[in-house]
Amino acid sequence: MVDAGRVIANLEELRALTADESGAQRVAWSPTWLNARAWFEGKLKGISEATGAELEAHYDAAGNHWVTLVGASERALVVGSHLDSVPNGGWLDGCLGVMAGLEVLTHAAEMYAGRPPVTVKLVDWADEEGARFGRSLFGSAAFAGKATVEADRGRTDKDGVTLEAALAGCGVDVERVGEAVREQKNLAAYLELHIEQGPILERLGKSLAVVQGTKGVERWAITFRGQEAHSGSTPMEVRRDALAAAAKLALEIRPIAKKHSQAVATMGSVKTFPGIVTAVVGRCETTLDMRDLDAEVLAQMLREARAASERFAQEEGCTVEWAKIWSIEPIPFSEPLIALAEEAIVETVGTCERLPSGPLHDAAEVARLGIPTVMMFVQSLNGLSHNAAEDTKREHLEQAVEAFVRLSEKTMEWIARS
Amino acid sequence: MVDAGRVIANLEELRALTADESGAQRVAWSPTWLNARAWFEGKLKGISEATGAELEAHYDAAGNHWVTLVGASERALVVGSHLDSVPNGGWLDGCLGVMAGLEVLTHAAEMYAGRPPVTVKLVDWADEEGARFGRSLFGSAAFAGKATVEADRGRTDKDGVTLEAALAGCGVDVERVGEAVREQKNLAAYLELHIEQGPILERLGKSLAVVQGTKGVERWAITFRGQEAHSGSTPMEVRRDALAAAAKLALEIRPIAKKHSQAVATMGSVKTFPGIVTAVVGRCETTLDMRDLDAEVLAQMLREARAASERFAQEEGCTVEWAKIWSIEPIPFSEPLIALAEEAIVETVGTCERLPSGPLHDAAEVARLGIPTVMMFVQSLNGLSHNAAEDTKREHLEQAVEAFVRLSEKTMEWIARS
Repeated sequence: MVDAGRVIANLEELRALTADESGAQRVAWSPTWLNARAWFEGKLKGISEATGAELEAHYDAAGNHWVTLVGASERALVVGSHLDSVPNGGWLDGCLGVMAGLEVLTHAAEMYAGRPPVTVKLVDWADEEGARFGRSLFGSAAFAGKATVEADRGRTDKDGVTLEAALAGCGVDVERVGEAVREQKNLAAYLELHIEQGPILERLGKSLAVVQGTKGVERWAITFRGQEAHSGSTPMEVRRDALAAAAKLALEIRPIAKKHSQAVATMGSVKTFPGIVTAVVGRCETTLDMRDLDAEVLAQMLREARAASERFAQEEGCTVEWAKIWSIEPIPFSEPLIALAEEAIVETVGTCERLPSGPLHDAAEVARLGIPTVMMFVQSLNGLSHNAAEDTKREHLEQAVEAFVRLSEKTMEWIARS
Repeated sequence: MVDAGRVIANLEELRALTADESGAQRVAWSPTWLNARAWFEGKLKGISEATGAELEAHYDAAGNHWVTLVGASERALVVGSHLDSVPNGGWLDGCLGVMAGLEVLTHAAEMYAGRPPVTVKLVDWADEEGARFGRSLFGSAAFAGKATVEADRGRTDKDGVTLEAALAGCGVDVERVGEAVREQKNLAAYLELHIEQGPILERLGKSLAVVQGTKGVERWAITFRGQEAHSGSTPMEVRRDALAAAAKLALEIRPIAKKHSQAVATMGSVKTFPGIVTAVVGRCETTLDMRDLDAEVLAQMLREARAASERFAQEEGCTVEWAKIWSIEPIPFSEPLIALAEEAIVETVGTCERLPSGPLHDAAEVARLGIPTVMMFVQSLNGLSHNAAEDTKREHLEQAVEAFVRLSEKTMEWIARS
């Protein structure tokens, strides 16, 4: 029997164990994160004792935690998310998916007397947030064969501790993280439940959505160069104000994104040089982050933003330079699994939304491998996440767990027959 | 006989003594500045010897250097400027006025056989730039009775050295700087020659201008507050983007200033918070600097900018807060002296421009006291100042010295007859 109350009770227990008045402190590779994982191991033991099911558990070479309930078929359904949080994070981001996954595992053990038709695995990915070393999706990327050992070797946290040393303290050898690819074997589907972390479902008055995929991201550093000049002695008409060109772009990216229903474009950082009250800005460094689920749309937005920046630079007597920070293509989720998730949600709450995910998730790394993948979103209150105010109505959490377990049943059947 | 070549030779000698490959290093209260002043004392000795004139010289309580050639009348013409520079400064800013003043003194000693009709004083103001402690017009403000001992006591440079200690190292007692007001006695007129530090004369193809006064300045910190949000999960239409409101203001201050022929408005600094590529800007801190010679115009610009900022904040779902950094009223120069300066310039180069000064100068502190004051500007190349590229054509420097000495003669006559 599905017990959503048990999931919520676990989340509350974990919060009491790992949060302070500023929020969750389960930053990956920290003592608090290790405490959370030890607590979770205790939960697994409890399930084995209660259901009599044999659960195999181990940490892979990248620090991902895998729990396996062997089924009639070796082909495996994987459910999971991550226990790590940002500093001063929320109680649901990541943990909801792991605790709902635990409920899937428990339910499968109970329903099939310890031996489901297909193998069921639960994964707690290591360092999804990248909060300490700036490398998000650390564990799932390693699993997907995208380990970046060369780059990781140089990473340090704000206190100068190397990533290598922090990993070693958790029993992970940075040279061997690539071996996590071994876990890919026999995986037939991946499901992840997550809070939306945005305001859309709340505005629509809906509790649940199936996620169509993760949006592609184009992330650029854009620098405008004009001429630093004295604010008192330089007439308006001869200025070459780098801030003016940047300000025009900050405003122009909005209509560029708004042409497309789910696209977003953000100028998140502006730095002015010399940046003093008495000087016209000679150099303005900005960042641009653009996202859409459609690769064509994203490419068009990028072209338009670049053309606009060049027009504005020219108008202001400036130059403009674009340097790529990072990009990722849109990653669509599996159509058959989207259909199953939609069924499960409709059966639970009578109606289902389809949303793309703006934030990236571990599910994106799994989907890139070609493993059929889908995610489910539950409403976030006030669109808030990554802070202590992150919350979701209890009723919606219950609906989410119910729909997610339903989806796991449908997916096990789908694996068994495909 | 006026010898502009001597003025230029002195400037070159001082540059060789006090500049490195990055520019002039005569920062007030530094050893290099003290060297410049010692070199200047040597020049005074040379003039006494060459002309036979008796020159009385002393430093006042604020570190201003006064040199007096006693005339038939106690009523005094004062000429001067400052030897201190910003770090990596130019060879003309300030020094041109002091060296041209030295030429006025020499010329008066020669022309009137050591006893001109009125007393002639040369002043080298202490710390005009405020480069090290952030207090510009230090010496001239103290002279004008605007010493700010309470505020100055807390000032430190970037290495933590107190203003008080730096002053003490130069023989100036911070508690006594206010006593510099004694120097006001018998002053009948103040003249200062300075480089324009802007591009206007070069664009007009003119070498010299009479300065109508210094512009009033309104300097404000303006903070927009919206809502920090995830750049991936927050739809465009629900954002409360503090940067968007600030960007609109950065563009709007330009038409507000351009309505008035000589007004300027500058957003010199923009800071974004959290200021990361993946977050909509929740808080945007900006600075605004507005200047005009007309107090009414300046007040109107301030009203319009404030109203615009409130409109933009509302449009973007933000709030806006204004905090005053500093302001000063416009300071018009003396009409009779403006007329004399215009005569002197026309007699020298055949034509004369009238310009307001955007930057402040020591002359503003003198004028505020009601002492008749005027300045003369000579063209700057490329509008550059406060850096090693600061320069003026030799021909223009010669014209400037000639016109300035002519103005000093006219002013002595004006003092004598008024």
